[in-house]
Amino acid sequence: MKIAAAKLQAFCTDVLRVAGINDDDAHTTAEILVLTDTWGVFTHGTKNLRGYVRRIQSGGIRGNAQPKIVSEGPAWAIVDADSGLGMVGSTFAMRAAIAKAETAGIAYAGVRNSCHFGAAGCYAAMAAEKNMIGLAMANDTPTMTVPGARGLVLGNNPFACAIPTGEPPPILLDIAMSVVAGGKVFAAATKGEKIPETWMVDSTGKPTTDPTLFPHAGALLPMAGHKGYGLALMIETLSAVLTGTSIASHVLSWSFADPSRATGHGAAFIAIDVNAVMPLEQFAQRMRQTIQEIRSAPKIEGEQIYLPGEKEWRRRESALREGIEMPDDVLASLRSLAGEMGIDFGSLTR
Amino acid sequence: MKIAAAKLQAFCTDVLRVAGINDDDAHTTAEILVLTDTWGVFTHGTKNLRGYVRRIQSGGIRGNAQPKIVSEGPAWAIVDADSGLGMVGSTFAMRAAIAKAETAGIAYAGVRNSCHFGAAGCYAAMAAEKNMIGLAMANDTPTMTVPGARGLVLGNNPFACAIPTGEPPPILLDIAMSVVAGGKVFAAATKGEKIPETWMVDSTGKPTTDPTLFPHAGALLPMAGHKGYGLALMIETLSAVLTGTSIASHVLSWSFADPSRATGHGAAFIAIDVNAVMPLEQFAQRMRQTIQEIRSAPKIEGEQIYLPGEKEWRRRESALREGIEMPDDVLASLRSLAGEMGIDFGSLTR
Repeated sequence: MKIAAAKLQAFCTDVLRVAGINDDDAHTTAEILVLTDTWGVFTHGTKNLRGYVRRIQSGGIRGNAQPKIVSEGPAWAIVDADSGLGMVGSTFAMRAAIAKAETAGIAYAGVRNSCHFGAAGCYAAMAAEKNMIGLAMANDTPTMTVPGARGLVLGNNPFACAIPTGEPPPILLDIAMSVVAGGKVFAAATKGEKIPETWMVDSTGKPTTDPTLFPHAGALLPMAGHKGYGLALMIETLSAVLTGTSIASHVLSWSFADPSRATGHGAAFIAIDVNAVMPLEQFAQRMRQTIQEIRSAPKIEGEQIYLPGEKEWRRRESALREGIEMPDDVLASLRSLAGEMGIDFGSLTR
Repeated sequence: MKIAAAKLQAFCTDVLRVAGINDDDAHTTAEILVLTDTWGVFTHGTKNLRGYVRRIQSGGIRGNAQPKIVSEGPAWAIVDADSGLGMVGSTFAMRAAIAKAETAGIAYAGVRNSCHFGAAGCYAAMAAEKNMIGLAMANDTPTMTVPGARGLVLGNNPFACAIPTGEPPPILLDIAMSVVAGGKVFAAATKGEKIPETWMVDSTGKPTTDPTLFPHAGALLPMAGHKGYGLALMIETLSAVLTGTSIASHVLSWSFADPSRATGHGAAFIAIDVNAVMPLEQFAQRMRQTIQEIRSAPKIEGEQIYLPGEKEWRRRESALREGIEMPDDVLASLRSLAGEMGIDFGSLTR
């Protein structure tokens, strides 16, 4: 079923207001979740709103949280997200990084006491809107093993990079450090399908094709083995060790853990102001040259070369024009949520 | 054959002096190449000195180059390496990033008109020595394809991250964006061995096990497909697009291209001063907690869990104690070089 993005955003904003979130924060959060849905990244969009609301209602996410800068320097800040919605604290932090990069050229903002922030790409894209190169990353409860181990050791910590190109949309890379996201394993389990043996190991550390083992008796494999492991550890350091928040196994699952407890997620944002370093039009021209070179490479018969994020931005364009083609599981989650909150689900489709 | 690190360093310094490099720069370069050998990363160490010297003698690397900051701000600098040795310009740039991070907390230094800089980890480690988190990256002449393409599109751009832990050695990740380095493909070709079909594609874009096709009719595959591609493009942007140096196919191969021409490599360095953000001892304690958690994870039967760089630092410890166990191809290269430069090769082994 196709849903208009504007209606979906109004619906999500209403849900959050009823859950006790102030207008600004409800709007910010709804915008991020709907942006993610328009990209077609439904695992990280409005489908998760029901889980966030449950945590708000149980106290694990503070509805009246006020993120604030607790320490800062010329080109950095540490933000305490006050155990509020991950989208609210992360937006606050990326804005702080952007503001500092405007004077310093580059800035880092780390976040402590946050929660799941959704799709990392949303925050990287905020920097690109200001003609900055944006990096966004976060830690998470462990779902991934590392070479030599056989249990859950680190989160499959997400990483995003947005690069402005002079006009929207930016190049947008948004990846997790595991071979595949946990959501794909859950989806295979739901459908009763097997998974490729490159995705996961069982409790002895051997490759498995059984998705039902995850996460109690199975662990995701890091992408490219020691490379994904090392990058996940770098992200854990910038997001959690340096910010003073929960590290690795001390981070709670936003979806499975006791909803009355704060998850303790951390995050990190870096903004680099292109215009400080090089005239924007020169940079844009050089990016266009780079893009042109990539696009004009000889192609495999019948295939195309895409820029990072290109497919997602095309889906968004079509979604804004024709409505978002919502998967059944997302609609089911929103329908249940509407019922629980006493909000008219029909408003989405009228 | 085992060679004492100090003798190897004196030998390389002598070679560079004879090639016309000043004392400081010869020492810096020799130190980086020998550090790399002590890690056991022989593909990026003294083996390449002969190629660098050939470029110096032919004019493609300027022996009397003077790297300088051509533009800067509170937390960033662009360094022109004056087409000198990559190790010299890169060391200059990482020092600039460290100096700016001391006041700003984080800093970026981009480099233009450089050459091959050896192992990225050497520069990241310089930041860690100052209790900073260090990132180092560079672009390179294309050796890698990207999803959908069948030719050489981007370099397998290296990336390194060093994280101080309160006492040496730091955690040190040093990776290329391809599944394997080109050196491993050349090695298989030399030995007449086949390669796994996950490493490379042939000129039609199909996986191949024939290493002799590289690089004229074969291309390395990016690690983790679109993820390695996206990260390589991010590195190209920070190292080349934003620094004003040669991009992608415009970068010349430091080993194969006309040695009288400058290669135009770019690089990027980021330093984050831990102590600006969090008391160093607190950070170190939190890193120890993280390391302890990773080490104490259940292990696969008969296996061990290593930190990024741990094997390399252990090799260095042993190499400094007992000498570097030099592979035959490296010794052969150094022997030829000694002959060409009129330097006593025997000094290495006496």
